[in-house]
Amino acid sequence: MILCDVGNSRMHFFDGGKPLHLTFDEGLGRYGDEVVYFICVNGKIAPRISKEAPGWIDLSEYRMLHSDYRGLGIDREAACLGAWDGVVIDAGSAITVDVMERGLHKGGWIWPGISSFKEAYAGISPKLAVGIDPGVDITSLPKDTESAVSFAVLAPVKRLVEYFAPQFDITITGGDAHIFAPLFPEAKVDELLVFKGMEKMIKEKRC
Amino acid sequence: MILCDVGNSRMHFFDGGKPLHLTFDEGLGRYGDEVVYFICVNGKIAPRISKEAPGWIDLSEYRMLHSDYRGLGIDREAACLGAWDGVVIDAGSAITVDVMERGLHKGGWIWPGISSFKEAYAGISPKLAVGIDPGVDITSLPKDTESAVSFAVLAPVKRLVEYFAPQFDITITGGDAHIFAPLFPEAKVDELLVFKGMEKMIKEKRC
Repeated sequence: MILCDVGNSRMHFFDGGKPLHLTFDEGLGRYGDEVVYFICVNGKIAPRISKEAPGWIDLSEYRMLHSDYRGLGIDREAACLGAWDGVVIDAGSAITVDVMERGLHKGGWIWPGISSFKEAYAGISPKLAVGIDPGVDITSLPKDTESAVSFAVLAPVKRLVEYFAPQFDITITGGDAHIFAPLFPEAKVDELLVFKGMEKMIKEKRC
Repeated sequence: MILCDVGNSRMHFFDGGKPLHLTFDEGLGRYGDEVVYFICVNGKIAPRISKEAPGWIDLSEYRMLHSDYRGLGIDREAACLGAWDGVVIDAGSAITVDVMERGLHKGGWIWPGISSFKEAYAGISPKLAVGIDPGVDITSLPKDTESAVSFAVLAPVKRLVEYFAPQFDITITGGDAHIFAPLFPEAKVDELLVFKGMEKMIKEKRC
């Protein structure tokens, strides 16, 4: 079974081995003739999928997450299903944080992703075009520009998760998971989380 | 005495009346022949000031803030001097938060400004091109996209200030001060804060 999570900038494939992160052209070229279960948050690429990959099966009709959140992206839904319980941090094009309580989605929020943050800083002033340091000290006030920027991006994740879900298990996924992992030494990093949720959708639909 | 705070996108003038927010062309056209005390964080516009406003006096040589922060912008320094004690939130092209303790700068951090945040969200997905709601509930988990975005921008300001400076007075300044004011009902909004700091620099230099 081949799964595909179509994001805003890339396609992420999983067939039981190591996930593959491909451009839209690469993904459709390589898997367009296969049967692929997919989710898609990218309205621009959807028409290309219909045309170039007619055998692909859209899981957006398989929605099963218990939530009263309006407008939850299907990628967030899949990640939440994959986790079932605890805090889910998905650090990709956007950084989403969601709280799950034994299968029930309690809500969550959305930051720009690391690359968007970096672009935003650089667009304000060349002085702010600095890297994000995953090892920045978020326990004391920053005293230089790079720390001030890294702190501003990372400290809110730690403090808000602590505030809203202090006793919860934490799972981190997405391409920038490694940047957030040092904030939560007890967290699990799981690059397959969205795919696990997609597998649950498929299984549920078949029952 | 005319003061000017040259920002990344506009010039802010103060001559004792209501502050004026002008484009670079407007500001240099109107005040280029006057004596103006100024601070400037904008490297691109500095050469134009030297050429078109030869009588302007650069206060960057008047630095007097007690701080071991490396690379503090002179606008942040002026705002901190203006406040002298407590938390200073300056919400302009960037959102800076600084902590002052009886004249001593203890450190601070920098987020993108509201307009940069909005651009960053819109650049990720048209679904995230939503407004920032100053009245969003930051005490419970968001359950729709607009709340999730507004929460992500505003809740960190509240929670990090609470965490790092719980007992401090708070002063909010900058063009977007009104967006942050509802977070801190006890805070003072002072659109003259940077100018007050500039006046202190001038007074100190004259002594």
